[in-house]
Amino acid sequence: MPFPKQVRLVEVGARDGLQNEPNPVATETKLELIDRLGAAGVNYIEAASFVSPKWVPQMGDAREVMTGIQRREGITYAALTPNLKGLEGALETGVQEVAVFGAASESFTKKNINCTIAESLERFAPVIEKARDAGIPVRGYVSTVLGCPYEGDIAPEKVAEVSKTLFEMGCYEISLGDTIGVGTPLKAKRMLEVVSRDIPIDKLAAHFHDTYGQALANLYAVLEEGISIIDSSVAGLGGCPYAKGASGNVASEDVVYLLHGLGIQTGIDLQKLAETGHWITQSIQRPNRSKVGTALMTK
Amino acid sequence: MPFPKQVRLVEVGARDGLQNEPNPVATETKLELIDRLGAAGVNYIEAASFVSPKWVPQMGDAREVMTGIQRREGITYAALTPNLKGLEGALETGVQEVAVFGAASESFTKKNINCTIAESLERFAPVIEKARDAGIPVRGYVSTVLGCPYEGDIAPEKVAEVSKTLFEMGCYEISLGDTIGVGTPLKAKRMLEVVSRDIPIDKLAAHFHDTYGQALANLYAVLEEGISIIDSSVAGLGGCPYAKGASGNVASEDVVYLLHGLGIQTGIDLQKLAETGHWITQSIQRPNRSKVGTALMTK
Repeated sequence: MPFPKQVRLVEVGARDGLQNEPNPVATETKLELIDRLGAAGVNYIEAASFVSPKWVPQMGDAREVMTGIQRREGITYAALTPNLKGLEGALETGVQEVAVFGAASESFTKKNINCTIAESLERFAPVIEKARDAGIPVRGYVSTVLGCPYEGDIAPEKVAEVSKTLFEMGCYEISLGDTIGVGTPLKAKRMLEVVSRDIPIDKLAAHFHDTYGQALANLYAVLEEGISIIDSSVAGLGGCPYAKGASGNVASEDVVYLLHGLGIQTGIDLQKLAETGHWITQSIQRPNRSKVGTALMTK
Repeated sequence: MPFPKQVRLVEVGARDGLQNEPNPVATETKLELIDRLGAAGVNYIEAASFVSPKWVPQMGDAREVMTGIQRREGITYAALTPNLKGLEGALETGVQEVAVFGAASESFTKKNINCTIAESLERFAPVIEKARDAGIPVRGYVSTVLGCPYEGDIAPEKVAEVSKTLFEMGCYEISLGDTIGVGTPLKAKRMLEVVSRDIPIDKLAAHFHDTYGQALANLYAVLEEGISIIDSSVAGLGGCPYAKGASGNVASEDVVYLLHGLGIQTGIDLQKLAETGHWITQSIQRPNRSKVGTALMTK
């Protein structure tokens, strides 16, 4: 299969990238990050998460972030909404898209939200329904698709089952997350092959973490299979909560460099993106985990 | 083409990885590194470089290193020998293999060794001849195969020409170096396709740097083309002399993780390799640039 001509990058730095910071990042810093990402040509930005601030204080300013954004035309500003209360909060801010977050591992689901996968999906039903009533598209995440920190290997069939359920419940797109970054290219291909039997490949996104340095190789492999939506985080913001000091989200700059090198368009200005990564990592005093960003900014 | 069943890893950490250290690393540390690498199952170790200590003081102890190694059976301990004097020094230490180092870029060759590519190759002729007389195989490096810090893009035909010349001069294997790590998968494939018209693919090695984070994706792409020899550096030792703070050699641990994930054998114990990477980076106080090493050692 030929590579897609164009890939849509879903920038998760402002949400996934900042939600594990030991100290919550200032709302104005988040807003500047979101604005700079938009100026660099990113057209889909996951900006906030409407979770309980008791559980994730880092996202406690979701309302302020969503209402504070200087919206640019052509950019989708999305928010994570794990439950009805979160969705209601998000809807009040004029959110354009929302997302729900499931997993393909029973142990992971149990440890994270203390219920079975089936129960977790049931909880999403009213969220998806209400969002649909409000005319708001819902994106579905499935995590641990290439491995689980508690149970190891995950069967592609399990990933397919959860993905299909979310898709049939009304999620317009399913983002497949290698949450702990343990995947390798053939594993990623095999998983995708099984999942895409039920869901068209252009409705699937690759959300790969770089904990074991494999993310770009895995992305290259799934691009060969026709994937055309990729989640990433500027400067690789985020780290890995399961291995302190290790990498989390694949860095947007490195993904864009790969894509442009393959002749695939993204609409993104790589230099501006690298400057944004440099700026945010300096601002919050974190290492720049983008190799492209590091190379471009130290030349 | 199916993936190779087995890949030979050429470990360059002790040479390429340490030759740019601001302060020369102690001989005994090098020897311990080499020993640990052997214990981890690496069977080809580039251990030293017989260059003028005036130019590369970091390699000034080449003789001590080569004679100090506690040799293990089944492991090749090799040395770089850029000229006849270097070769003579290496031969005195009972070296098993040597290597010469060319480039595909005229500007790079001019800046580095102040001559044309043709002149540089002429200088290798007596080295290769004398090594052959001594029954010592010679490996040929070609650098800047996917880009040059001075002239940018390099034509695959130029890479092929230099590689073919070295091969015909008697190098038994050609290692293709993306010296500044700017390559992307299709570029790497195209280059390899042109070079392998003249040289059998099993006589070609991929020596990719990770400066732009692309090394593993590029390796995956050339594995698809049948490459079965890969150069790498434990813990990604080496950095990039053209962009301070940026990455150099791809980390051996990350390569081994990729290969094992693809079902390709290496004979290497990944955990031991990761421990070696952790140990050497602690010893010389350098960041561990292997993501696999970092993830495994911080669990």
